[in-house]
Amino acid sequence: MARNLELHPDRLLPADPSVRGLARELYASVAGLPIISPHGHTDPRWFAQDETFGNATDLLLVPDHYVFRMLYSQGVALEDLGVRNKGVDPRAAWRLFAERYWLFRGTPSRMWLDWVFAEAFGMGVQLSAETADLYYDTITDMLATDAFRPRALFDRYNIEVIATTESPLDTLEHHAAIRAENGRADGWQGKVITAYRPDPVIDPEFEGFQANLDLFSALTGEDCRTWTGYLAAHRQRRAFFASMGATSTDHGHPTAATANLSASEAAALFDRVASGNFHSSDAELFRAQMLTEMAGMSLEDGLVMQIHPGSFRNHNAALFERFGRDKGADIPMRTDFVHSLKPLLDRFGNERNLSIILFTLDESAYARELAPLAGHYPCLKLGPAWWFHDSPEGMKRFRHMITETAGFYNTVGFNDDTRAFLSIPARHDVARRIDCGFLAELVAEHRIEDWEAAELAQDLSYNLAKKAYNL
Amino acid sequence: MARNLELHPDRLLPADPSVRGLARELYASVAGLPIISPHGHTDPRWFAQDETFGNATDLLLVPDHYVFRMLYSQGVALEDLGVRNKGVDPRAAWRLFAERYWLFRGTPSRMWLDWVFAEAFGMGVQLSAETADLYYDTITDMLATDAFRPRALFDRYNIEVIATTESPLDTLEHHAAIRAENGRADGWQGKVITAYRPDPVIDPEFEGFQANLDLFSALTGEDCRTWTGYLAAHRQRRAFFASMGATSTDHGHPTAATANLSASEAAALFDRVASGNFHSSDAELFRAQMLTEMAGMSLEDGLVMQIHPGSFRNHNAALFERFGRDKGADIPMRTDFVHSLKPLLDRFGNERNLSIILFTLDESAYARELAPLAGHYPCLKLGPAWWFHDSPEGMKRFRHMITETAGFYNTVGFNDDTRAFLSIPARHDVARRIDCGFLAELVAEHRIEDWEAAELAQDLSYNLAKKAYNL
Amino acid sequence: MARNLELHPDRLLPADPSVRGLARELYASVAGLPIISPHGHTDPRWFAQDETFGNATDLLLVPDHYVFRMLYSQGVALEDLGVRNKGVDPRAAWRLFAERYWLFRGTPSRMWLDWVFAEAFGMGVQLSAETADLYYDTITDMLATDAFRPRALFDRYNIEVIATTESPLDTLEHHAAIRAENGRADGWQGKVITAYRPDPVIDPEFEGFQANLDLFSALTGEDCRTWTGYLAAHRQRRAFFASMGATSTDHGHPTAATANLSASEAAALFDRVASGNFHSSDAELFRAQMLTEMAGMSLEDGLVMQIHPGSFRNHNAALFERFGRDKGADIPMRTDFVHSLKPLLDRFGNERNLSIILFTLDESAYARELAPLAGHYPCLKLGPAWWFHDSPEGMKRFRHMITETAGFYNTVGFNDDTRAFLSIPARHDVARRIDCGFLAELVAEHRIEDWEAAELAQDLSYNLAKKAYNL
Repeated sequence: MARNLELHPDRLLPADPSVRGLARELYASVAGLPIISPHGHTDPRWFAQDETFGNATDLLLVPDHYVFRMLYSQGVALEDLGVRNKGVDPRAAWRLFAERYWLFRGTPSRMWLDWVFAEAFGMGVQLSAETADLYYDTITDMLATDAFRPRALFDRYNIEVIATTESPLDTLEHHAAIRAENGRADGWQGKVITAYRPDPVIDPEFEGFQANLDLFSALTGEDCRTWTGYLAAHRQRRAFFASMGATSTDHGHPTAATANLSASEAAALFDRVASGNFHSSDAELFRAQMLTEMAGMSLEDGLVMQIHPGSFRNHNAALFERFGRDKGADIPMRTDFVHSLKPLLDRFGNERNLSIILFTLDESAYARELAPLAGHYPCLKLGPAWWFHDSPEGMKRFRHMITETAGFYNTVGFNDDTRAFLSIPARHDVARRIDCGFLAELVAEHRIEDWEAAELAQDLSYNLAKKAYNL
Repeated sequence: MARNLELHPDRLLPADPSVRGLARELYASVAGLPIISPHGHTDPRWFAQDETFGNATDLLLVPDHYVFRMLYSQGVALEDLGVRNKGVDPRAAWRLFAERYWLFRGTPSRMWLDWVFAEAFGMGVQLSAETADLYYDTITDMLATDAFRPRALFDRYNIEVIATTESPLDTLEHHAAIRAENGRADGWQGKVITAYRPDPVIDPEFEGFQANLDLFSALTGEDCRTWTGYLAAHRQRRAFFASMGATSTDHGHPTAATANLSASEAAALFDRVASGNFHSSDAELFRAQMLTEMAGMSLEDGLVMQIHPGSFRNHNAALFERFGRDKGADIPMRTDFVHSLKPLLDRFGNERNLSIILFTLDESAYARELAPLAGHYPCLKLGPAWWFHDSPEGMKRFRHMITETAGFYNTVGFNDDTRAFLSIPARHDVARRIDCGFLAELVAEHRIEDWEAAELAQDLSYNLAKKAYNL
Repeated sequence: MARNLELHPDRLLPADPSVRGLARELYASVAGLPIISPHGHTDPRWFAQDETFGNATDLLLVPDHYVFRMLYSQGVALEDLGVRNKGVDPRAAWRLFAERYWLFRGTPSRMWLDWVFAEAFGMGVQLSAETADLYYDTITDMLATDAFRPRALFDRYNIEVIATTESPLDTLEHHAAIRAENGRADGWQGKVITAYRPDPVIDPEFEGFQANLDLFSALTGEDCRTWTGYLAAHRQRRAFFASMGATSTDHGHPTAATANLSASEAAALFDRVASGNFHSSDAELFRAQMLTEMAGMSLEDGLVMQIHPGSFRNHNAALFERFGRDKGADIPMRTDFVHSLKPLLDRFGNERNLSIILFTLDESAYARELAPLAGHYPCLKLGPAWWFHDSPEGMKRFRHMITETAGFYNTVGFNDDTRAFLSIPARHDVARRIDCGFLAELVAEHRIEDWEAAELAQDLSYNLAKKAYNL
């Protein structure tokens, strides 16, 4: 017998009845606010071309590394799930997933997926071996309808603005197409902007870095084998990205290291790196120096800078060789901020017109390093609980460990940071519920007033993200 | 006036009445399940010879480093407690403890001991200076009765299986005797198995390592001064341990370092180590390489591998000299897993038929490193909250920080990991209560369904341990 | 419309009604206990000279780095707040603060300040742009009255004893004056003691260290350019400080490193350091060795030793140059204790007549390192949650992560550790509320008995501090 699927209206709100009452009221006041999605990884092609998404497996299983990494950890082969394997029967892959859906008990994936199943697709029974085909057929059929095209979902989900993330080498043709559409009176009016993520031309250890420098030259007309040409190319592409709506850059380095080299030292380092004949410590120093260079350019052009450090990418070497990046094998590392950021902060830390948003996968830095840094330096703000910590418990730890030192106003609201488009409203909903629960607890313990909690609920759900990202 | 001692039926369950109701129901459904004790340090001689345990001090004070380290921290001399001192009057030692029992307020020792006092010995008043003699006499008298012999307690406590931990140099005669007993129709049927803990012949810095190599040779007939002979000796002893019921190995290294040397590098390293003329970095590398070798043998023989890293053993040099190992002076250290385990994982990480259970004393690794690793690699599982963290708060932190990324099914249920036999049911009881409280909270916040919580309560209390350890 | 300001009687107590009832009772039993303030940074001149405090800005804004760092992080210039700027209109500075008081939502500063506003100054409306002038005028007027002189406030706040913190180079004239006053039958009887904080003559990287050595010689008549003279000078000043009431020393080093050099190695190191021609690693080693030397002197003279490690002082170089020390730019760092303290512990760890109180800014060390160390070594105790963690959440984490391994009796009660005199009762009140809430939760979960919680509430609020600091 299949179990009912029902999303309880009080889910994720604190259990204590008096606190829950407060939380429910706060949540009700923000549940319907538009979604601001200032950082994420959706595909702009979806919104430019507005094609249907394919079948259930294509949309919900194959691209979701949260889901397939858990199945992989329990012995399911990635090939059998259709990852990098067009030969698999998508229904068979879906069944493998459905039969093991209980593995996700207690995980955020389970909550996001249940939301998608119930709210987006109207499923009334839980996913299981028994309901695998019902799910596959229902979802696949609905995805073929106009109501499930990307733009229709974008509108239905009340997304006010969404940012994608692109390499400097990207031509942004889809963003251009969307902007053209926006410009027509009868065109679609969804706001889809880009963000400048230069890792492929900044990280000397990125796959294809040397070829990327040549592409960077070709694209910009600058000589990106010289330090000055290389910097000019960045300036040019940043301006182009800004013209395509970008208000931010994003930097995904292994550490938070920054450097503050003299111009000649930096040029000499670049020459080593560009020659392809460099040591791993050169690569680290170059990434470090480039964070500082990017901060300098942000001060010029006003793009907000995001730093996402501390992931050991592609930890599973054999898996990476066979399946490539982003397959659930990125593992967080201990991350130092207090020493790492000092060179950049020595140069730009006191600038009031610079905004750097810090993220971490190392929660031990929240109260120890990040809150004190953001609670002092005018240029620093703290991004929300990220990736593995984008979860109810992760968000609670973030608020509990950050707020007392950094306050609420050195944080920037929520990021969904996802490529799983359908989960976006589910993720924002989780964040709003957890934040309202946290605020309700503060009110219940008389640490803030109820009217302050009401203001804060709006700020955390909507205002702070708009403000921090200049949206 | 002596205070009453009463174990409250709701102890350790969440205070909120609605959550407590749920927790109470869940707990009721698992409270009576048999105990699976897949890892611990009880003495097999107890079960083989079934002799009485001696007096209260011998059983409850002298061997319990949790207890005497606390007393020592507050100025009581270990000699006065009878530690390595046969000359002390056990009643006088017991009084020193009883007078200071209030020092244990808020500690798990207090909860385990109160359970033992009330449930095992039927004490109705609290331990204090005033009741010291009453306790000493009552307990000592009861210990002389047949009902308090090891096998009677084993049966009374509903232990389905217990694993002890032995060195490869151990002859396992007690296990053999128990198995012989098990084989007789009228013999005792208690299941007592061993586990292979090779630290004394793997860690070049272990006391007596060089002599141990010779014993290893003598015991196996292999030449354990050669790399191939040494490896063959391990294979032979592992097979012997398996024949004595072992389903697991256990490795207590200072760090989680692993290595992946070529066969010739490994042989050369072994030669240095076996020569006795080696650097401390050789010792670390050898331990690291041996974890990988052991993983390879586990893939051959199916023994589950446990890694317990990160304890700075015998931190108090003067105390170690006088009183030896395991005297409450082992202090946890920061432990890295993401880099340390990579060499082993590069070689065996994707094996579905290998099972490695990771423990930590560094809770900062839970959400950052361990859950992401176990939530990806098929061979990795996470052991329960260990040692200092085998406590109500420690268990809560474990579930809160592990579950969202690793789920429940990459964990392995509870280990009591103790040499304090009488505390075993108390410890499993604490774990069941805390887990049921955690599940009840998830239900109360509508993060899982009530029927899922009921299944999970059985899994966490019983099924997962059996499955993970092949019991 | 200005919002009411009212301090709720149940503030900071757990929200659950049954737990709150218990907590309220416990709190009621300790709310009125005298304040023991065994470590802090108030100015002894206040109590010696008993002059009025000046205006609202001078007292509450300019000296409070918690407050102005938050304003600075949000773009307010320190000059405009009157920090190192006599030219600013104090009322204008106050308005900048008042207009931004909402930035402090959820921070302990907000709670302390609201207590000061409501309890000390009787304000009935909240601080905001609208009430800025009302606040400024009311507070400034009241500060001019006798009731708001330092001694009157000291008495009103029921302070039994307060310790200040001075450099060995301080002449302690204010303490002498206070003691003379204490000695007169009709004199003020407030007990104000000092503490020996030798960083300026121990840390070779302290501003003015070389000149300080000369002052140290001049003050003591010892030749502080020789190792023996230098040590003798310490002994002499420690004795003088003890004669001025000191019962403790205090050490604010960047790390917790200790060393155990031979006398000749130590002398050679001192020569390098005193020559001014030394490496940064010499400075670190010298600080490390001096902790061990200070422990040795504590064993002789009975002064309790406090170690406050792990702050990266003056992280913001430009700000330090312009505004000096203690401007909200000290950032915590990861801190190791297990290796760092070993040299000192190897020498003195088992001394029962030595007392070393450890503090940390790195909460990841609580359960992993500090509780196990303090739960074993007789000489170690744990100081309360410190600085950034002197907050409701910080205190809760401290109790949750420390208690199970170290118990309550290896901790030392509360320190306010502040230079913000008016906030002292507010801070002790927060600590008492949080501790009572924690105890109430233990009772509600039947982990301790109610009568034990009642004893513990007294101990944590009053007894432990007196005992640990020999007051």
